[in-house]
Amino acid sequence: MVSPKPIFTLFLLVLLISGSSTAPPGKRIRDRSPCQRLVFYFHDIVYNGKNAKNATSAIVGAPAWGNHTILAGQSHFGDLVVFDDPITLDDNLHSTPVGRAQGFYIYDKKDVFTAWLGFSFVFNSTEHKGSLNFAGADPLMNKTRDVSVIGGTGDFIMSRGIATLMTDAFEGEVYFRLRVDIRLYECWRKRKN
Amino acid sequence: MVSPKPIFTLFLLVLLISGSSTAPPGKRIRDRSPCQRLVFYFHDIVYNGKNAKNATSAIVGAPAWGNHTILAGQSHFGDLVVFDDPITLDDNLHSTPVGRAQGFYIYDKKDVFTAWLGFSFVFNSTEHKGSLNFAGADPLMNKTRDVSVIGGTGDFIMSRGIATLMTDAFEGEVYFRLRVDIRLYECWRKRKN
Amino acid sequence: MVSPKPIFTLFLLVLLISGSSTAPPGKRIRDRSPCQRLVFYFHDIVYNGKNAKNATSAIVGAPAWGNHTILAGQSHFGDLVVFDDPITLDDNLHSTPVGRAQGFYIYDKKDVFTAWLGFSFVFNSTEHKGSLNFAGADPLMNKTRDVSVIGGTGDFIMSRGIATLMTDAFEGEVYFRLRVDIRLYECWRKRKN
Repeated sequence: MVSPKPIFTLFLLVLLISGSSTAPPGKRIRDRSPCQRLVFYFHDIVYNGKNAKNATSAIVGAPAWGNHTILAGQSHFGDLVVFDDPITLDDNLHSTPVGRAQGFYIYDKKDVFTAWLGFSFVFNSTEHKGSLNFAGADPLMNKTRDVSVIGGTGDFIMSRGIATLMTDAFEGEVYFRLRVDIRLYECWRKRKN
Repeated sequence: MVSPKPIFTLFLLVLLISGSSTAPPGKRIRDRSPCQRLVFYFHDIVYNGKNAKNATSAIVGAPAWGNHTILAGQSHFGDLVVFDDPITLDDNLHSTPVGRAQGFYIYDKKDVFTAWLGFSFVFNSTEHKGSLNFAGADPLMNKTRDVSVIGGTGDFIMSRGIATLMTDAFEGEVYFRLRVDIRLYECWRKRKN
Repeated sequence: MVSPKPIFTLFLLVLLISGSSTAPPGKRIRDRSPCQRLVFYFHDIVYNGKNAKNATSAIVGAPAWGNHTILAGQSHFGDLVVFDDPITLDDNLHSTPVGRAQGFYIYDKKDVFTAWLGFSFVFNSTEHKGSLNFAGADPLMNKTRDVSVIGGTGDFIMSRGIATLMTDAFEGEVYFRLRVDIRLYECWRKRKN
């Protein structure tokens, strides 16, 4: 039998070290390819006093100068909106939903439309069971903006990643269609027993 | 001295690779046993206009058709509730609390009771100092539902995991007792110096 | 060529195992030095009915016994405040901001000032582009209190860590200056291509 070449062994070890994401003290370089990628659309219909039947969201908090039916002036600053929006695979509001986007946004800037988002995607389709949880700043006027995937449950247990939001369409201040491109960089799978 | 067998060395390396949770590109298989498990109860007494002294939570946001004393119709859609609830080790409201559950929930669906939760467990007992932070969807009518542990501080620094909520008891729309089964899959410990 | 010493090879492997944060089953010991540390100040000016021009935050939710202009009694329990505060590198409100702190806090305790925080630091400076997202309990009367860094985007993609808040100065119930000491324990860097 041939003895292993020390240099080859060291080479393997070095490979292994870089592969297992160890790096100069305190800094880790990690692979930036997502372990899972998902694209969805969700559809927000804001209650405006006349659309009670179709509305999927409603103002539930407002500043002293606002009310709960009409979005406030100054870029809606202070309006808190709760939503339960259908999630679809394509951009058609009437496609069969694969889940619901549930949570809230708060408009938080006076001179430009910007909101803070806390919400979940709750899936209930043949393809996905479970949820993804999101949080982050949403500067609405930017073409794309990134929020964090802060966790998940079910099929998405312990997931983390980035969700890129894009306003795909809107009608006045009532209908908003958002495209969400989700890149998960931490994926946990069930151990095979 | 005997030279190491190349096959044995490779075997060790393979073991090491699988043990350090590297896997086919982009997917990691990780051990699914929790590194810490904790079970608690917390007790929510919603203010209803008559129980100011005992109430541990209150409505602070509501849709245009609601108010801040009575939970709204349509599955309380749009009601935002803030809470500071005692955490106990058993199901007795009057047991000595080991901490407080503090945060909020927003009812976010019109046709079934569902909420979005953002809250912390703030511990102050001989056993635990620090906090755990939670976020996620809570479809109340399900026997159990999972939310994410998105972080922690103190004894729970950098923790992540899953918390399974169960409505253990309730009285009308005033008292709710929740059982929480917390499984942490990421635990950080203080380095021994 | 000299064959590698088995003991030396094993020693390397053991080093590697401990270095890649494997440990007794279910528990990982990880290095506790931050991979990035950042210190900032942010400045919150609460709307009080008279300071519309300068206010950076406003009450947008309140309990039945409160309103949206004056912080409520009982330690402001139930008041929801939305903010868009300038972030500065030093403690001077008038220094050039390096970004904005955007999000909300909800006072959630009746007998002591305590809040639940959900917010982002949105950076737009030559030094930092991107955002950090935070969540956690803020017992305001403590000299320091820790909240979780639950994610990040841009330069801070996938970051996690701890942010230590300190009330650096305040004027009545209108102006609050907070010092934030951010320690990131998970840092992702762009892969060099």
